[in-house]
Amino acid sequence: MGLINDDFMLKGKTAKILYHEYAENMPIIDYHCHLSPRMIAENYKFRNAYDLFLSGDHYKWRLMRAAGIEEKYVTGDADDYEKFAAFAKTVPLMIGNPVFHWIHLELKRYFGIDEILSERTCGEIWKKCNGMLTSDEFGARSLIEKSNVETVCTTDDPFDSLEYHASLKGFRVKVLPTFRPDKAVEIGSEAFVPYVRNSGANGFSDFKRLLGERTAFFAAAGARLSDHGIGEIPFCEGDAEEVFDKKMRGESVTQREQDVYKTEMLLFFAQQYKKYGFVMQLHMGALRNNNTIMFKSLGADTGFDSVGVSCNVTNLSRLMDAMEQRGMLGKTILYSLNPNDNYALSTMAGNFNSAPDRGKIQLGSGWWFNDQRDGMESQIKALAATGLLSEFVGMLTDSRSFVSYTRHEYFRRIFCNIIGQWVDDGEYPCDMSALGKIVKGVCHDNAEKYFGF
Amino acid sequence: MGLINDDFMLKGKTAKILYHEYAENMPIIDYHCHLSPRMIAENYKFRNAYDLFLSGDHYKWRLMRAAGIEEKYVTGDADDYEKFAAFAKTVPLMIGNPVFHWIHLELKRYFGIDEILSERTCGEIWKKCNGMLTSDEFGARSLIEKSNVETVCTTDDPFDSLEYHASLKGFRVKVLPTFRPDKAVEIGSEAFVPYVRNSGANGFSDFKRLLGERTAFFAAAGARLSDHGIGEIPFCEGDAEEVFDKKMRGESVTQREQDVYKTEMLLFFAQQYKKYGFVMQLHMGALRNNNTIMFKSLGADTGFDSVGVSCNVTNLSRLMDAMEQRGMLGKTILYSLNPNDNYALSTMAGNFNSAPDRGKIQLGSGWWFNDQRDGMESQIKALAATGLLSEFVGMLTDSRSFVSYTRHEYFRRIFCNIIGQWVDDGEYPCDMSALGKIVKGVCHDNAEKYFGF
Amino acid sequence: MGLINDDFMLKGKTAKILYHEYAENMPIIDYHCHLSPRMIAENYKFRNAYDLFLSGDHYKWRLMRAAGIEEKYVTGDADDYEKFAAFAKTVPLMIGNPVFHWIHLELKRYFGIDEILSERTCGEIWKKCNGMLTSDEFGARSLIEKSNVETVCTTDDPFDSLEYHASLKGFRVKVLPTFRPDKAVEIGSEAFVPYVRNSGANGFSDFKRLLGERTAFFAAAGARLSDHGIGEIPFCEGDAEEVFDKKMRGESVTQREQDVYKTEMLLFFAQQYKKYGFVMQLHMGALRNNNTIMFKSLGADTGFDSVGVSCNVTNLSRLMDAMEQRGMLGKTILYSLNPNDNYALSTMAGNFNSAPDRGKIQLGSGWWFNDQRDGMESQIKALAATGLLSEFVGMLTDSRSFVSYTRHEYFRRIFCNIIGQWVDDGEYPCDMSALGKIVKGVCHDNAEKYFGF
Repeated sequence: MGLINDDFMLKGKTAKILYHEYAENMPIIDYHCHLSPRMIAENYKFRNAYDLFLSGDHYKWRLMRAAGIEEKYVTGDADDYEKFAAFAKTVPLMIGNPVFHWIHLELKRYFGIDEILSERTCGEIWKKCNGMLTSDEFGARSLIEKSNVETVCTTDDPFDSLEYHASLKGFRVKVLPTFRPDKAVEIGSEAFVPYVRNSGANGFSDFKRLLGERTAFFAAAGARLSDHGIGEIPFCEGDAEEVFDKKMRGESVTQREQDVYKTEMLLFFAQQYKKYGFVMQLHMGALRNNNTIMFKSLGADTGFDSVGVSCNVTNLSRLMDAMEQRGMLGKTILYSLNPNDNYALSTMAGNFNSAPDRGKIQLGSGWWFNDQRDGMESQIKALAATGLLSEFVGMLTDSRSFVSYTRHEYFRRIFCNIIGQWVDDGEYPCDMSALGKIVKGVCHDNAEKYFGF
Repeated sequence: MGLINDDFMLKGKTAKILYHEYAENMPIIDYHCHLSPRMIAENYKFRNAYDLFLSGDHYKWRLMRAAGIEEKYVTGDADDYEKFAAFAKTVPLMIGNPVFHWIHLELKRYFGIDEILSERTCGEIWKKCNGMLTSDEFGARSLIEKSNVETVCTTDDPFDSLEYHASLKGFRVKVLPTFRPDKAVEIGSEAFVPYVRNSGANGFSDFKRLLGERTAFFAAAGARLSDHGIGEIPFCEGDAEEVFDKKMRGESVTQREQDVYKTEMLLFFAQQYKKYGFVMQLHMGALRNNNTIMFKSLGADTGFDSVGVSCNVTNLSRLMDAMEQRGMLGKTILYSLNPNDNYALSTMAGNFNSAPDRGKIQLGSGWWFNDQRDGMESQIKALAATGLLSEFVGMLTDSRSFVSYTRHEYFRRIFCNIIGQWVDDGEYPCDMSALGKIVKGVCHDNAEKYFGF
Repeated sequence: MGLINDDFMLKGKTAKILYHEYAENMPIIDYHCHLSPRMIAENYKFRNAYDLFLSGDHYKWRLMRAAGIEEKYVTGDADDYEKFAAFAKTVPLMIGNPVFHWIHLELKRYFGIDEILSERTCGEIWKKCNGMLTSDEFGARSLIEKSNVETVCTTDDPFDSLEYHASLKGFRVKVLPTFRPDKAVEIGSEAFVPYVRNSGANGFSDFKRLLGERTAFFAAAGARLSDHGIGEIPFCEGDAEEVFDKKMRGESVTQREQDVYKTEMLLFFAQQYKKYGFVMQLHMGALRNNNTIMFKSLGADTGFDSVGVSCNVTNLSRLMDAMEQRGMLGKTILYSLNPNDNYALSTMAGNFNSAPDRGKIQLGSGWWFNDQRDGMESQIKALAATGLLSEFVGMLTDSRSFVSYTRHEYFRRIFCNIIGQWVDDGEYPCDMSALGKIVKGVCHDNAEKYFGF
């Protein structure tokens, strides 16, 4: 019996029933990911197991670096098999790490492989995967389809043409864009001025007008969500136009001025999202690009980000309250990279819940470094203890990988395990009708209703 | 066998013995609550199950709002049964939430009801409860008496006449006032100036003199505790009188000035408490009234508060040290709404413990959003790991409800479960004499000695 | 069967195998402690059980104060037996506290005592221990030897003569110094100016030159580690020499100026450590000497320190990045006294891992108040979930006590229990070859390679 067997992560009898009878076969709504729409549109074929499993996966790169693997074998010019072998050698060291489970879920579900990946099994697994990858069944679209996916939401810049999304209208899985205007918000970044220039905007009002048009364009393309990545949440009222003008003149802007601008833009976007019924996602608390040398060498999103300080919930409260007072606060999902924030964010969500929406403000699923057994359990338990777990919109992959849908399976097993444990411990009655509804809700039905796909 | 059976929340054999033989029958000392002394004095009769279970209970309101229930059925003008039914419908969704356990403990212990409250059972339970509520046994006083309560400490403004407490001298349960002078401390609030005016004080010294008199008055009325609700703990020395005068002249005071005033007042009150032997409670870290629209519509304490940032332990250290250096630091209980503070507060308490008091500075019981299985476990384990759990003064309800005494049962079960688990795991010897003393201490005896009722 | 039996802290079958077959007999590398080199050199004989178990142990003192024991019996002028008895009386109250386990591990492993220490057994245990302590087998060196210790790293001031270390060259256990220059960094302290004066330094450059010489001297004496105790991590660039000169002239320096100086010194030291291959330890987040009265009466390290606010990871990131950019970032271990920092520090470590080192940047073992079951589990699980637990350099005692080596046993049991649980739960295969390597690595082999003893 391999690692990934029927009862993987399921300890009690109720957990097993809940998973197999209610969770396992629910379709997947992956409402937040970083898949390339182009790769889907072009039905990308993976050249080998390295390309599929390792290319672009900074989770794995970090572990390889921790194991003392030279960068040549991580992101450098070693050949694909050498890199795959360097990874394989590291896998048995990953005890307690989600990547240990993820890679074996991926090998099992997509390739039927039960072996543990290691230095010993590396060559055989490389061959078997590569052989299968030549088949049509392993193109980007086939991988999505065979994962029982209903809807995928990619993450896109406001000025993206969405041409690939357009070309995917006929695909039986919905592939929808998500409006992510970080570059229009991050006025402190060097990329800001060129970004505004490229937009063709003539001043602040015009920039906002253009962004408003783009929101409408995304709405027309079927978008149901927006997304903001924010290190530390700002709340500072002032003259945003003045800050914008200053920046565009090439002058430097203070942290306070940046916060004024960001506050204004977040309020502006909230208004747009309310208008088009977009759910607003706030991803807070990441400390990015900590290693300057590696940033210069490899760019962003290459494994040099980490958990930042706790979220400034005072500012978050003021920001959400300002939105609410102006009638602009719509459905919102709060994520923090710092797991210490679970209680603060779950209870903050409770301050702004209101009918007719169910679970209007959500504590987001365990994000990034928290997307593992302990992190998910912590998020699930915090939400249950301080809110309504039953209304949770559940899991997303947040991933660049076409085989990461197994993380939905991983989440569902962990979720059913917790719920089942409560039942076995006599903390909730063994009422399969109520439980089945909760499980199906969190695995699929809540997201379907919440996002209105 | 219903949800609330003999072994509810008790997993191991030692836990069951400890609970049933040592904890279950101990009388209750509810040293911190928000019961209305008037309702006790007048032996209030509840008009129906809504009035008893839901009226004023913001925990339940928040969950109803999370379920998308319209405000009409939460705090609005729907009739009592409609509101009760809206709540009942939400109950099965509350998996993992303490309210799910609380409501069933309340139904079981006061009404003998074993059914799960839901849309289906709602009507029947409504009828059964309402029938019983007409009996004399369900007046406010009878509910307290039949809960095996020994002492109740309410929460009162310094200028309260304490007339209802006076009228309760003959009641066989001690009902004592607690001195809570937040309105005299919160100089940033709009209510401050009218509050001082109403007191009749002529200047800062006179205000302090009056407050000192009121402390003596509370002491004479049997008070043994004080209480302070403080968002972020201040420590800033300066001329508090100047700040007071400025505020009274109608000028605005800066955050720093407010901190100067608050620091002075906390030191002043500590001195008074030391004089009269009051235990000082510090409730820190709540972020209140986050939703302005709802605050304007419903006022405070209606379900729009949440967990704030971690406690400023540097300031707390300075404040307590200043008290200690001036010989004014008496028994003190530290509560933070942010559960991340458990270690910082438990170890801070250890800095100021001294003979002859046992457990002189206490880490308070899991407060508010932390008053549930995980929150209580986290507090109990943090205290055990970094201090002396055996000296803990234990549980309180912090509640406005006359049936919330079941939360003492809930705590005791969870407490015995942890202790029993340690014994079953071989981490503490199965010495029933030592264990029984610890259990009875935490459930009742420590509080009795500590507060000196 | 006493408390400390074969399976103490070991729950599942795999845990038992892992501990007994792989962990139990590994030699101890105690790479961070506060033992007195002089006591080792002079083979100190303990005058009695008080001297061995209680003298200098502020963990125990804090618990005694929490139990309301008068200071006379803690650090005062009561006689040794009275103090031992006062402690013994407190022991049964220590349920859930690591001291309860530590003391019984110490009694069992060094004295073969199975009894629980208490008021009842106190006299008998006192006699038995004192009798054995007269034997040569209980000198400081024998205690170290019989604990299966390979290497001990003490903690020393840069200007220490290291004479005792020199005299210990012939001892079969390596006793190496650790370079801890806190007094050269803490410019805010009253001790700073005299410290610089005593060094004989003529100005800032000369002070750095001298410190550089001392680093070389420590290197020649076999040092492999340095250590820094830092309350809040600074990062502030500026003219450190100006701040130094100002301070030496007797002027006061602002917090910002202190941070400028500290930043410069941390960068300077990092450079030295890189040169000599020292591992840099950063101990962050302690809030020290909180009780001024007791500090004046007893001095530092007497039980009046506590957990501070969360680590400023933004500053830590900048500091480490500055080191990396200047080519000075060597092996580093990050410890925070605040357990909430585990994820932030573990992921920060991941930002700077690089070949050829394995686990170059480490999340340090549960430190001080976190050196207990829950604290160690939290550190182990955080590291596993977000990094490579297999590369962890493991446990240290951080202790002044010659019998604290049992804490390595305690850690190993807890570590094997977690790993074994994962295996029993089917989360890692039952591959004893891979598991044995991981266990031996964390218990001994990783540290041996990492520090290069």
